[in-house]
Amino acid sequence: MPGAAKGRSYVGRRVRQAFQLINMDYSEFRQRGKEMVDYIANYLENIDQRQVYPDVEPGYLRPLIPASAPEEPETFEEIIKDVERVIMPGVTHWHHPHFFAYFPTASSFPALLADMLSGAIGCIGFSWATSPACTELETVMLDWLGKMIKLPDQFLAGNDGEGGGVIQGSASDATLMALLAARTKVIRRLQVENPNLEEAEVMGKLVAYSSEQAHCSVERAALIGGVKMKMIPSDEKFAARGEALRKAVEEDKAAGLIPFYFCATLGTTPSCAFDKLMELGPICNAENLWMHIDAAYAGSAFICPEFRYLLDGVEFADSFNFNPHKWLLVNFDCSAMWVKKRTDIIGAFRMEPLYLQHNHQESGLITDYRHWQIPLGRRFRSLKMWFVFRMYGVKGLQEYIRKHVRLAHEFENLVLQDTRFEICAEVILGLVCFRLKGSNALNEQLLKRINNARKIHLVPCNLGDKFVLRFAVCARTVESSHIHFAWKNITDIATELLQENKK
Amino acid sequence: MPGAAKGRSYVGRRVRQAFQLINMDYSEFRQRGKEMVDYIANYLENIDQRQVYPDVEPGYLRPLIPASAPEEPETFEEIIKDVERVIMPGVTHWHHPHFFAYFPTASSFPALLADMLSGAIGCIGFSWATSPACTELETVMLDWLGKMIKLPDQFLAGNDGEGGGVIQGSASDATLMALLAARTKVIRRLQVENPNLEEAEVMGKLVAYSSEQAHCSVERAALIGGVKMKMIPSDEKFAARGEALRKAVEEDKAAGLIPFYFCATLGTTPSCAFDKLMELGPICNAENLWMHIDAAYAGSAFICPEFRYLLDGVEFADSFNFNPHKWLLVNFDCSAMWVKKRTDIIGAFRMEPLYLQHNHQESGLITDYRHWQIPLGRRFRSLKMWFVFRMYGVKGLQEYIRKHVRLAHEFENLVLQDTRFEICAEVILGLVCFRLKGSNALNEQLLKRINNARKIHLVPCNLGDKFVLRFAVCARTVESSHIHFAWKNITDIATELLQENKK
Repeated sequence: MPGAAKGRSYVGRRVRQAFQLINMDYSEFRQRGKEMVDYIANYLENIDQRQVYPDVEPGYLRPLIPASAPEEPETFEEIIKDVERVIMPGVTHWHHPHFFAYFPTASSFPALLADMLSGAIGCIGFSWATSPACTELETVMLDWLGKMIKLPDQFLAGNDGEGGGVIQGSASDATLMALLAARTKVIRRLQVENPNLEEAEVMGKLVAYSSEQAHCSVERAALIGGVKMKMIPSDEKFAARGEALRKAVEEDKAAGLIPFYFCATLGTTPSCAFDKLMELGPICNAENLWMHIDAAYAGSAFICPEFRYLLDGVEFADSFNFNPHKWLLVNFDCSAMWVKKRTDIIGAFRMEPLYLQHNHQESGLITDYRHWQIPLGRRFRSLKMWFVFRMYGVKGLQEYIRKHVRLAHEFENLVLQDTRFEICAEVILGLVCFRLKGSNALNEQLLKRINNARKIHLVPCNLGDKFVLRFAVCARTVESSHIHFAWKNITDIATELLQENKK
Repeated sequence: MPGAAKGRSYVGRRVRQAFQLINMDYSEFRQRGKEMVDYIANYLENIDQRQVYPDVEPGYLRPLIPASAPEEPETFEEIIKDVERVIMPGVTHWHHPHFFAYFPTASSFPALLADMLSGAIGCIGFSWATSPACTELETVMLDWLGKMIKLPDQFLAGNDGEGGGVIQGSASDATLMALLAARTKVIRRLQVENPNLEEAEVMGKLVAYSSEQAHCSVERAALIGGVKMKMIPSDEKFAARGEALRKAVEEDKAAGLIPFYFCATLGTTPSCAFDKLMELGPICNAENLWMHIDAAYAGSAFICPEFRYLLDGVEFADSFNFNPHKWLLVNFDCSAMWVKKRTDIIGAFRMEPLYLQHNHQESGLITDYRHWQIPLGRRFRSLKMWFVFRMYGVKGLQEYIRKHVRLAHEFENLVLQDTRFEICAEVILGLVCFRLKGSNALNEQLLKRINNARKIHLVPCNLGDKFVLRFAVCARTVESSHIHFAWKNITDIATELLQENKK
């Protein structure tokens, strides 16, 4: 490599040296990269010796580092030392086997290795031409994954399908993209029927629906899209039902509104409930509502034949999404979305400036994924799927899902054996909703003490008017022993709390 | 670690073995991780021996791999072998020193190392509690970067500022977030003045503006937000001017519309032109238009005192954004956005379900970044900024920018010395717009031959009614010799083309 530092007499010698080091010394990267691999292996191997939830108070970090970036370069040793001093004390360890909060986020070695490669290739895959491999591997990986969960063929790209899949950054993006596609579609349809209709006039009448149990990002998608959203009440199992949707649609139509979108949830965030697709789907189809299905967490389980029934009814949907980055060992971000008609989603806002055009674009064979998503740029994320699917194999992934479900039932049984507690929702996959029989205040205290003890980490939810504790099986390395550790921790604190309250 | 394979008699032996390997054998990861580091170092060190743009045709990849995921696990050796067989033939090498297309995308060793660490920590930083370090380092890094480009203090978070920064996935996200915040703000303001006003009624009258030279993602933001957008004609230097904006605003107000948002561009995509902030800013402020500034590419240059004048007028803006993942050596994705009033952006669509609440949230000290962006989840991206800023130092980063600008002028001088060619826009940073004097058809042919020759890679743009070739200095390792190589390649092809046309 020619010398980058040539003719730079006006910069200090130290800068010049560091510049040479970073710019040209590949052997330095080889060394530091391998040190980082060891640091990562050590971190993950010994994560159970760290505290799952940090002790720091808000604002802890700022005083630990300088107020401005350094003028002169620093060494790698200085920085890596600061990782333990500055960063680790403030990390919530999502991959700690005592982390049972939210839903899992994936972490696996094949995904970490693939992400290193993706970073090095560092292409920005907004069109086919910007890196054909980036686009084409993604299309095929979404077909692989679609087949793994037995999605109807209409959702697959194949060689000449009308559907296909895309990696979105998050389920929120998928929900929003589906809503925007639905919005454009209904406006165009109505304008064909009535060419004088103003877009703004339609927008003011559009109404979207989801279950009251749906994730907050669904309501947010409607806010972003500038349309009304109504929440359908759920049944006693926290599932949205056909009758409730039909009632809402009929009322709104009678009031002159235009129902156009329904977002069903498979595996709700509070309790992992499943909306009744077989009731909801036919209504959506009959009423011309775009049906999007958000199975962010639960979707990974559908690779197991014994859980595939939960997806029955997907054939009624226009779009479907779940997050391999939650429960399928593909590190964040990797949210898989499929549509039956790719023209619907591309049509939402196609843009073709000259600087993004390329030779092949009118060939009909090409996917330019920038039309499928909110951002323009995109990383080479399908490499992670390829590495993970191949290194685990479908059987290995199924076994992983089954292990988590087994552990959830193990926890459920522990709860059921203690009459002071109650289970608050049916345990179907890896989430257990439970509480002490008693007041919400009591359960709020219980949760607070559990998290303050810092042995395990949980978050709560509301189910009906009840404050409920959520126990989600999360870490890749979690085992029966960790479940028992957690339960002992919970019951010890509960005993203490109940005794105090008796006094 | 307790054995994960316990009691799994119903799965094949090979699966169990692979599962143990992947699930438990950290030493295997240490080995493969180091092999991957070497693969990456080899790839980057010898990238100039690869062809910058691939030869493959659409659909090339699907026949190269199986139609479905394997049932049984495969080995790492099998996969890494396929990287050269399946992936590399279809990669457009953005970090090849002969890549001069689009704008640069960043790649540096410190960023690659930091991203490995980020992947291993694997936290999802949607709220402070999900990993305080993830949120707090981001806030401080955005302050560091804001100081590096001398942003007015109002944009910084500091200890008690009203402003602050956030990492978005792309400039498209930043433009959209700003537009949504502006939309909510104007609707609330008008509803305070007139409580009977319907949101839909306001929406139908809202109008946003940008330069006709603005990136297509700006128009897209308006489409997503469901509001009109009008394009302001630019001047002979492709810059938006105050008078043009004033005229549009006055016409629209007279027509009963409600102007509410203007997106200025610093460093447009076609020609790296700069909108006149000092003219536009006062109009925006006087007319109650939210001013967002998109400096996606050019922003990195503002760390150099000699280029900081290009940012003068930012004090009029409500929000500002640029992409360190383009030109500041922080790998994609890392789009830095600042707002003067964080309450404006948070107010766009705050949502607080119980499962996302935490103890500290009402303390006033806390940032929950999920309110600042479209997706909910977010990776620990500030680590990349921290590593890069420290390992290069501000001086090293300035030197890097200066080198690219120097090389652009070197190319400009080569063009100027050849009377067959013309420069089509002022060269201010790292982009040179040029063409053969002659017809658009001639230049289209020239570009096609250049890209078909596969020696270098360029993309075109339209400037006025001219078809223009864009030469962007991109790779981290690009040197004077590569600029001369590119110019010789271009002129050889031009000579051949002009001779043929003479016949």
